[in-house]
Amino acid sequence: MVLPGISEIRSAIDAELDSFTRSRASELKAIDTHLNPVAEALSEYVLDGGKRFRPIFAYLGHLAAGATPSQQVLRACSALELVHVCALIHDDVMDGSDSRRSKPALHKRFEALHSQSAYSGSPEKFGLAAAILFGDLALAWSDQMISESGITELQVKRAIPIFHEMRAELMAGQYLDVLEGALGKSDLDRSRKIARYKSGRYSIERPLRFGAALAGASESLQQSLSDFGLPLGEAFQLRDDILGVFGDSKVTGKPSGDDIREGKRTVLIAMTSERSDSSVRAKIERALGDSTLNAIQVAEIQRLIEDSGALAECEELIQRLLNQALSALEHPELDINVAKSLEEMALAATKRKS
Amino acid sequence: MVLPGISEIRSAIDAELDSFTRSRASELKAIDTHLNPVAEALSEYVLDGGKRFRPIFAYLGHLAAGATPSQQVLRACSALELVHVCALIHDDVMDGSDSRRSKPALHKRFEALHSQSAYSGSPEKFGLAAAILFGDLALAWSDQMISESGITELQVKRAIPIFHEMRAELMAGQYLDVLEGALGKSDLDRSRKIARYKSGRYSIERPLRFGAALAGASESLQQSLSDFGLPLGEAFQLRDDILGVFGDSKVTGKPSGDDIREGKRTVLIAMTSERSDSSVRAKIERALGDSTLNAIQVAEIQRLIEDSGALAECEELIQRLLNQALSALEHPELDINVAKSLEEMALAATKRKS
Repeated sequence: MVLPGISEIRSAIDAELDSFTRSRASELKAIDTHLNPVAEALSEYVLDGGKRFRPIFAYLGHLAAGATPSQQVLRACSALELVHVCALIHDDVMDGSDSRRSKPALHKRFEALHSQSAYSGSPEKFGLAAAILFGDLALAWSDQMISESGITELQVKRAIPIFHEMRAELMAGQYLDVLEGALGKSDLDRSRKIARYKSGRYSIERPLRFGAALAGASESLQQSLSDFGLPLGEAFQLRDDILGVFGDSKVTGKPSGDDIREGKRTVLIAMTSERSDSSVRAKIERALGDSTLNAIQVAEIQRLIEDSGALAECEELIQRLLNQALSALEHPELDINVAKSLEEMALAATKRKS
Repeated sequence: MVLPGISEIRSAIDAELDSFTRSRASELKAIDTHLNPVAEALSEYVLDGGKRFRPIFAYLGHLAAGATPSQQVLRACSALELVHVCALIHDDVMDGSDSRRSKPALHKRFEALHSQSAYSGSPEKFGLAAAILFGDLALAWSDQMISESGITELQVKRAIPIFHEMRAELMAGQYLDVLEGALGKSDLDRSRKIARYKSGRYSIERPLRFGAALAGASESLQQSLSDFGLPLGEAFQLRDDILGVFGDSKVTGKPSGDDIREGKRTVLIAMTSERSDSSVRAKIERALGDSTLNAIQVAEIQRLIEDSGALAECEELIQRLLNQALSALEHPELDINVAKSLEEMALAATKRKS
């Protein structure tokens, strides 16, 4: 059996999301012409530039279990991207982030619509309301897309509990992340736990198991996918932490050092604190959450993090977690080609520049 | 067959919501002890004081179709309340409302947690983030509750499209409502359309049809339920408009005149504009969205609305819509006792004080 490659899977996911989102957009337009900009903004947001990690991992989970390629399953896996769309839209509101993928964040787009249309009232409040509502809509669509995917009742029964768990863990992890910022001190154990919940499970392990459950995978294979997905998910989040401070804005689509300005208490920051004396710690504490930091001030913080050895420690931890993940791919039931695709995705998730 | 009365149905819905929410709360607590206040706030929010209109209408839709009482269906109908919980939490954030049911709004509770715990950063941002995330969680729970309700595959197939439609219409209606405020002028046709979408369908007609679909109701009965639910839903929203301006804060749990301070462009306001001269219109325009209005200023606006005749016109429209709704209850398939319960609910929805 010839299995599809990663880029083929990604294109197929894009096509499914395109078709689903366009149908929903037409329904919105049919309700009221004032919903046209909404329908367009949402379609563009869903269809534009996502890496589709979660649907791809889910579909690979399905193939890993030896199941034959299935359009219905691909559709159900694509729905995970809509959960992610909700998370991104709402995350940008909570963080006060102005941009996403080199474009204005959704709340900023609706702020601009408000200003351009000379609406009355506050553009910020209007942007906030629109972003909250359309994040909600994307979340509701994620269920609808699974429900209309055409998977069987047995598949729903096996996989849907994982989907529900994944969403609850995402919200819980996001809250713990916000709380960590509010607690106002860095703690390595806590920040690693949050990285595992917020992203480790949600981005990789849960999607893999969702797909594997759709295929009715054996308990032993599911365990191997967890052994692969959990460390990889943590490594994925650590890469995010590094990109949030050191990322090239041209590639990430977000201003360099944005995580510092937003006051994110990541594993990288906790490592830096542990390795620094009180004067360096005080400098970093002052910079965290200071939205006015300029490029020179960001560069200074980058240097402190690098000089402390935390950047190297974080890179080493990513490599160790990646190796641990890859060693879980030696499972007798796992097809060699699927294992290769999972390895390719593991490298993409941890070596990425955006 | 003895059919349960409204208060019996409401108690059974409360019990289902109690049991579901407590299970989810324990899961949250198991993830991290920092989620204890979250679990408690959410449980309290779900279990405290809702009128349960949507689940009750849904369950009556089921009984209307001649189906026997079913705990599984009751559970699926109760899930509609979780959609509503999401809508209320997010609505209060968007409107900047401080209270709900005589208690602080959810974002205010988390603002208070932030202040009491002496967390660092902005209490407002923390409250906003918590309310966005826990609204999302309630929305995700609504699917989970249906999915775990124990209804059959056939029932899911019949009813779930209505559930998805209902949620999309809710978000669309809410956006149109926010937009109406931003458009900055009152228009009777547009505000009636919004009332129909935002509340007319979402609060009554869609729940009724959801329940009826679970019972496999005939097309003719479904049509009658729509003929009952659509005008009643609009009347329900008009009552909301009146309570938002004239409501007794001790009964509504919200400050009197809150809709004026929030700048809501309701049907009542559009009627007042149509019936007033330019000087009165200008006074009302100045008051709309002015969050600093005191009780005396609110009383002045109440008087202007009353003197214009708009309050009486709105009351008459409610009565006309109610009569139209009740006349749709004469359907040969409709059990007399269910019709009586629907009439009781129709009166509760339009004569309520909160």
